[in-house]
Amino acid sequence: MKLGIYGYGNLGKGVELAIKKNKDIELAGIFSKRKNIQSITGEKIYHIDELMSFKDKIDVLVICAGSATELPILTKELVKDFNVIDSFDTHANIKEHFENVNKNAMEHKRIALISGGWDPGMFSIARLYADSILPESATYTFWGRGISQGHSDAIRHIKGVKDARQYTIPIDDAIKKVESGVKPNLTVHEKHRRLCYVVVEEGADKNEIERQIKNMPNYFADYDTEVNFITEEELKNEHSESPSGGVVITTGETGINDEHKHVIKYRLKLDSNPEFTSSVLCALSRAIYKMYKRGEVGCKTIFDIRPIDLSNKTNEEILHLL
Amino acid sequence: MKLGIYGYGNLGKGVELAIKKNKDIELAGIFSKRKNIQSITGEKIYHIDELMSFKDKIDVLVICAGSATELPILTKELVKDFNVIDSFDTHANIKEHFENVNKNAMEHKRIALISGGWDPGMFSIARLYADSILPESATYTFWGRGISQGHSDAIRHIKGVKDARQYTIPIDDAIKKVESGVKPNLTVHEKHRRLCYVVVEEGADKNEIERQIKNMPNYFADYDTEVNFITEEELKNEHSESPSGGVVITTGETGINDEHKHVIKYRLKLDSNPEFTSSVLCALSRAIYKMYKRGEVGCKTIFDIRPIDLSNKTNEEILHLL
Repeated sequence: MKLGIYGYGNLGKGVELAIKKNKDIELAGIFSKRKNIQSITGEKIYHIDELMSFKDKIDVLVICAGSATELPILTKELVKDFNVIDSFDTHANIKEHFENVNKNAMEHKRIALISGGWDPGMFSIARLYADSILPESATYTFWGRGISQGHSDAIRHIKGVKDARQYTIPIDDAIKKVESGVKPNLTVHEKHRRLCYVVVEEGADKNEIERQIKNMPNYFADYDTEVNFITEEELKNEHSESPSGGVVITTGETGINDEHKHVIKYRLKLDSNPEFTSSVLCALSRAIYKMYKRGEVGCKTIFDIRPIDLSNKTNEEILHLL
Repeated sequence: MKLGIYGYGNLGKGVELAIKKNKDIELAGIFSKRKNIQSITGEKIYHIDELMSFKDKIDVLVICAGSATELPILTKELVKDFNVIDSFDTHANIKEHFENVNKNAMEHKRIALISGGWDPGMFSIARLYADSILPESATYTFWGRGISQGHSDAIRHIKGVKDARQYTIPIDDAIKKVESGVKPNLTVHEKHRRLCYVVVEEGADKNEIERQIKNMPNYFADYDTEVNFITEEELKNEHSESPSGGVVITTGETGINDEHKHVIKYRLKLDSNPEFTSSVLCALSRAIYKMYKRGEVGCKTIFDIRPIDLSNKTNEEILHLL
């Protein structure tokens, strides 16, 4: 099968690399708004104006654009001409996005999958299986240790800040409390703390910057926030990667008096957030293309995907994984 | 929907309890070979001779019989008259069992699911997702800390042994090695050790019993095996539960030079092996009944099940788990 890549940021690069790991998937073309850029593995990059001439050469188009603002427009438009997949992750707007994409997909007899990746994505799968198996259970999601792009950006907008990285770190005691099975009520700031590495402009007031970070509503004010000032070189050497991950923990009981406790944990520890997300998108693209060939159309989520459709293995090889 | 329970051992009891947790599932009837037994929640228990009169009252029959010997016969026979589900777990014979059940299910237009539970079952799901996302990854399954029925039975067969419990315990160093991403070659006895609690008959030769256990081929000889002699009362008080669980760990790389490592972990910590297995079987029963109502027939495994079909939640509620 042939994948197209729409958008060539970190996620697009990740899909390009993931395709090389999947022997049944070929690259049909990379498309970018920018001109004269180079692919990291030496592939030609087309301008998005050329996309329509690839209409019959792309089985699934992986839309690797900015989630919050671009995907709500792009996915619903591109599904008119392509099978598409995206990693839309603004939880509050998923329903609206789903309905928009589904309408156009049905009308144009295409298949789409939205919100692929690891959260939403594999973490959603962990939550749904656990919730279905243990109906009266409680499920908790902890993120990190990992870079939060949104929080890093928020720091960068402060006057005097040259660059910044923010790590979201789960609080161990909260995880232990959850694992104990007591089903605690935890606010987000009881679950996570925030660790910031900040590079400032020459002569900037560090105390004032630290004060502004720690008092920023929603982003930092409610959290245990640690601010470290470092040099540009330190930031480059020690904080240029995008590690991420987290854990979904479900606890529930069975038994005649709920006397038996069960703990289900799904944990990801990722050296590269965009490359792992891209790897999930590749497997999901395979699945929706199989579904499309069976005649399925409309908008799907990872919840609609049979696990078997994700795999490139033969049915007999797959039985060995049982 | 209405579930029937065929066989009333620990697994059957677990299904009876799990039904009470699932508001959309009712008990249609419990069927046993034994006569004059009582259900733990006060339900009437029918003799299996009465099963056929329930043919139109049971949507899915959960077959809770001994896996190795009974299921290969029971499931393929019962699928002629019922939608069925089992927890067949003899890995080497799954393919044959699948084909036998599938043939009869197709012929009688019924749906069946074999090998449901947690391993095979949820652990299989963890293995397949991880393998599909990271194609060149390595996956390891560790079991325990948990009771192994087969190993406990093997000890009980030794002369002079009155009762015994064997715990399979994963070796921490092996888990750490796997998590480091080096993809080690590990034999089963490098992954697990065996901890035995043994009650002996009066006057039995403990040294000889310990020697026999530790030298038993396949079961113990290759393992680091610890034997503890305890009283009947200690066994009853401290080792009467069936805790279980384990972890599936996958490590793989992405990046232009495989420079980014990813670790995926799915861990279960279960106070009651049969009750958790039953809870999985209930969710799977819901799913295959939905599929049956959509017109699907034949033998399925957990790999064929859309996650969404496992849930009792509405589509809108499910989107919130994304």
